Amino acid sequence: MTAVAVPDVRAPRRTQGGTTVTRGVLDVLAAWGVQRIYCCPGSTEAAMLDSLVTRSDLELVLVTHESVAVAMAEGDARATGRPAVAYLHTNVGMANGLAHLSSAQLSSAPVLVLNGLKASTLAGRGAFTTLAHPRDMVRQHVKWAHTCAAADLVVDDVDRALHAAIAEPAGPVWLGLPQDLLETEAPVPSPPARRAAGSGLTRPAPDAVAAAAVLLAGAQRPVLVAGGEIARRRATAEVLTLAERLGAPVFTDGRRDFQASTVPTDHPLAAGLYDPAHPAVRDADVVAFLGSRVFTEFEAGGTDELPAAARLVHLHPDAAEVGRLHPVDAPLVGDPVLALADLLAALPADVGRRRPAAVSAGESASRPAAERFPGHVGLGPVVAALADAVAAADATVVLDATTATVPLLRGLRTTRPAQLLSSVSGSLGWGMGAALGVAMAEPAHRVVCLLGDGSFQFGLPALWTAAADKVPVTFVVLNNRTYSAVASALSRFGGAAAEQDRWPGTDITGLDIAAAARAFGVPAERVDRVADLPRALAQALAGPGPAVVEVLTGPASPPTQPPSAQSPSTPTAADPAAAPEGGGQAW
Amino acid sequence: MTAVAVPDVRAPRRTQGGTTVTRGVLDVLAAWGVQRIYCCPGSTEAAMLDSLVTRSDLELVLVTHESVAVAMAEGDARATGRPAVAYLHTNVGMANGLAHLSSAQLSSAPVLVLNGLKASTLAGRGAFTTLAHPRDMVRQHVKWAHTCAAADLVVDDVDRALHAAIAEPAGPVWLGLPQDLLETEAPVPSPPARRAAGSGLTRPAPDAVAAAAVLLAGAQRPVLVAGGEIARRRATAEVLTLAERLGAPVFTDGRRDFQASTVPTDHPLAAGLYDPAHPAVRDADVVAFLGSRVFTEFEAGGTDELPAAARLVHLHPDAAEVGRLHPVDAPLVGDPVLALADLLAALPADVGRRRPAAVSAGESASRPAAERFPGHVGLGPVVAALADAVAAADATVVLDATTATVPLLRGLRTTRPAQLLSSVSGSLGWGMGAALGVAMAEPAHRVVCLLGDGSFQFGLPALWTAAADKVPVTFVVLNNRTYSAVASALSRFGGAAAEQDRWPGTDITGLDIAAAARAFGVPAERVDRVADLPRALAQALAGPGPAVVEVLTGPASPPTQPPSAQSPSTPTAADPAAAPEGGGQAW
Repeated sequence: MTAVAVPDVRAPRRTQGGTTVTRGVLDVLAAWGVQRIYCCPGSTEAAMLDSLVTRSDLELVLVTHESVAVAMAEGDARATGRPAVAYLHTNVGMANGLAHLSSAQLSSAPVLVLNGLKASTLAGRGAFTTLAHPRDMVRQHVKWAHTCAAADLVVDDVDRALHAAIAEPAGPVWLGLPQDLLETEAPVPSPPARRAAGSGLTRPAPDAVAAAAVLLAGAQRPVLVAGGEIARRRATAEVLTLAERLGAPVFTDGRRDFQASTVPTDHPLAAGLYDPAHPAVRDADVVAFLGSRVFTEFEAGGTDELPAAARLVHLHPDAAEVGRLHPVDAPLVGDPVLALADLLAALPADVGRRRPAAVSAGESASRPAAERFPGHVGLGPVVAALADAVAAADATVVLDATTATVPLLRGLRTTRPAQLLSSVSGSLGWGMGAALGVAMAEPAHRVVCLLGDGSFQFGLPALWTAAADKVPVTFVVLNNRTYSAVASALSRFGGAAAEQDRWPGTDITGLDIAAAARAFGVPAERVDRVADLPRALAQALAGPGPAVVEVLTGPASPPTQPPSAQSPSTPTAADPAAAPEGGGQAW
Repeated sequence: MTAVAVPDVRAPRRTQGGTTVTRGVLDVLAAWGVQRIYCCPGSTEAAMLDSLVTRSDLELVLVTHESVAVAMAEGDARATGRPAVAYLHTNVGMANGLAHLSSAQLSSAPVLVLNGLKASTLAGRGAFTTLAHPRDMVRQHVKWAHTCAAADLVVDDVDRALHAAIAEPAGPVWLGLPQDLLETEAPVPSPPARRAAGSGLTRPAPDAVAAAAVLLAGAQRPVLVAGGEIARRRATAEVLTLAERLGAPVFTDGRRDFQASTVPTDHPLAAGLYDPAHPAVRDADVVAFLGSRVFTEFEAGGTDELPAAARLVHLHPDAAEVGRLHPVDAPLVGDPVLALADLLAALPADVGRRRPAAVSAGESASRPAAERFPGHVGLGPVVAALADAVAAADATVVLDATTATVPLLRGLRTTRPAQLLSSVSGSLGWGMGAALGVAMAEPAHRVVCLLGDGSFQFGLPALWTAAADKVPVTFVVLNNRTYSAVASALSRFGGAAAEQDRWPGTDITGLDIAAAARAFGVPAERVDRVADLPRALAQALAGPGPAVVEVLTGPASPPTQPPSAQSPSTPTAADPAAAPEGGGQAW
């Protein structure tokens, strides 16, 4: 190689950009409906970037930290149901994207991670930004992982990776792309026409459907739990029909498993977050977990999360999830829409005639949030104001608020499936990128991202992309200047910290969040009176681009007061789902 | 378990905090001379945090992103030569710290990563923030990795981990600490007294020393390269004695391998960065790489980095590094101080009498930097001002500046070994945390962190700790609003981007860096005239705490002008080490 010649811009060469291989990759992505590539590039991405110069069907969305790319791709995939692409640079970029990838895995989001690697011939030479086995670092976070081995196989590998991502159970996949293969002009196949006319989805076996139908039809006090897969597979109508025929209350997943809103909170049968202490659950004779992960445990040997006497129905697209931790009486493996249709058809005709139309719901109905959190001065009215603003704008909500999660899940009102999206990965900062991805992929709804000040620091670089692309996300930061989850854990531990009223590792006072947002070019307002919040939210939601509303809330666990002394409802191991503000075991 | 009782603060229980296990861990750390624990905690860290409440010999340094903890620990370890500890929370925290861990690995820094994990009984249950095999994610980044298996083994495991970290070749190690083991009261051993009276270091075999001595004594035009291990093992005096006896120019490692300054830049034999095109290297008959990694390759099949006719001496503490990529005539495995002493003793007595005292040095001597970069309006005078400020303050410099690295390495003047520290990991943002760790561990010198605006966005949360702990680091951000490395790569690729003068993925305009710093509580100034820079730097270096100086430099690769057209010295594959501003293949 010699020095690059200075191109003569007066006589353009009219190149298509990139190489046959990179153009082929983009052709495949476009054929699959991918519209954006979320990317923090490095030098290994030159050929791919070059081929994007001449295309209008694919947009490069530049991010300034790889964690943002991965979260955006997940948000995009969850909003559209289609695969989305994060493009990361070498081993260090991949490492930076890894934590949020665990969220995509848990939410079954078909995220394709393309990982630009140094040339394959360098892999064994300890070269700059290489690992001997990059796949080994990633493999636990994806369902499929492969490093391309030859230039003429790259395009087909990308196609296969996308197929793997969307095949049920869907999930993230990883494809390593050595630089030398991308920079080669190689014969590549045409964008493959995967010729399947059907969906590739499955129904449960007839005997399984019949068993579940018998169980539910015979139940005296059935309870339904509509989990995240109901939102992902858009099976809410089927769940509500089943609930109405059975006269059964419908819970959403509990706080630990909550991935997405599933049933309208104002539905007469909507019962709020799954809670083993709720009377309907406690007294249930049959509980049907529909599209739920049962459960995402927080601690060992903890609580009995299932009513002892109840028999269980468990529906999930992933056979490995059904009965994973708890024995199930009626397992249903398959697509929720198809399985629920089968189940409804299998119910005896008289089910739904002899029952009352409605059973008392839980606490999540239309009662204003403020009334439900009388003990939490500060956060209660904040939640109420947020709920009103979200409802007024019919906004989509992305939640990344650690210890404020439970009050928010209880207080927000939703009418659309997946109107509220969360993560169960515990990877802080996820929400900021995810919200941007949702907003880009589904511009019909405004997006509100609710997060804590700890999460905000993790997600900060997302503001660069928010500003650069003018993405209309309203970030609402509940700033209590505290790692409340740590303070709560210290309180539960009950040792010297609680005794001496000293809380190491909890005080994160110092960042002026609104000022930080403005430094990125994002309009921001700090609100320290609840009365000002509705106006601030309305203003942010009406603006043309991103905005940050920083809400100063009372420290959930002030260093001067042990959290356990603060509230009668400090979480207990026996009832983690009931943890209120400051009591969350969020992280 | 039941609810935690509200502690009665009127009647303190005078607990020691934590458990026997966590107290034992802290005892071991203290016995090894560890003074600080860099930590971003979560709920799994409650027992450990609790035991820190009652201790004054160990400081918890709170960080708001795990990447900062890992980089700080590396900076600490490199400044002191002692092990340093980063404490990370579960799988997601570990993932966030992974990229910078690759830097500790490459710099042979004895960093102990303690990774708080969920209870061991949860490992197979897909619980919150768990991986089935956390070790597998990390193992390629460390020299030793283990998950504790029993409470009464934890303390000994920590001791063994520290031993593994400092054993030569030193490097990072990982220890997984399941929460249940830490929260148990178990019998633990006393802090073990490792009874070794000697250092555990090694000398090369006598025949190897003799062979190297014969080669060097007989050389007509020998060249020495003093690599990062010379700084780490503090062997500069021995290198200079050898150089003076041989009358040989001494290079530092080249840009790709540069980890630390080794020889004073004003020494008559100091020849600057190793460069195969330098006349002294080109004409050398013997090149001795002393403590160098030979080489950290940037691209495949690239350049001939060794003079074809020269015979090679290679000294390194790690046997696996010696001759790893290139055949070596005289391998020397062992500690640099001991090996160089042996080598000096083995040289014939007349070596050093018959030679001239000094050979022409390279370009890195005291000539002002401004004169050496006439073509780079903007960066040249900036480098000159930085060099003067660093020299005046005798500051330690931490470098994380991607494409500005080569001008900075050439322009800065250093008098102390390890006065200038860098990373070869390619993990952006590393420098901000590393600089804080250096400053905390070695407060005798002021620390200047030089970085690019891209790196700044990756390292941003480090400012929280800088402000909270009032760490007197001066962060100088060379802000060209560009991913120059990507622009350069596109230019080298020479496709549609260069042809159409469009540079996707390169423009990161938007962040007001000084304003972002102030949002974190760090005083900051934006400088857009070089004339203002000396005063701004002096002011920042005189202040009591951290400061940010944002320097607006000309975009290295403006979107309106292809980088290749900008400068006659655009990098070429044949001479990557010579890459000037904007020409770095930095990432």
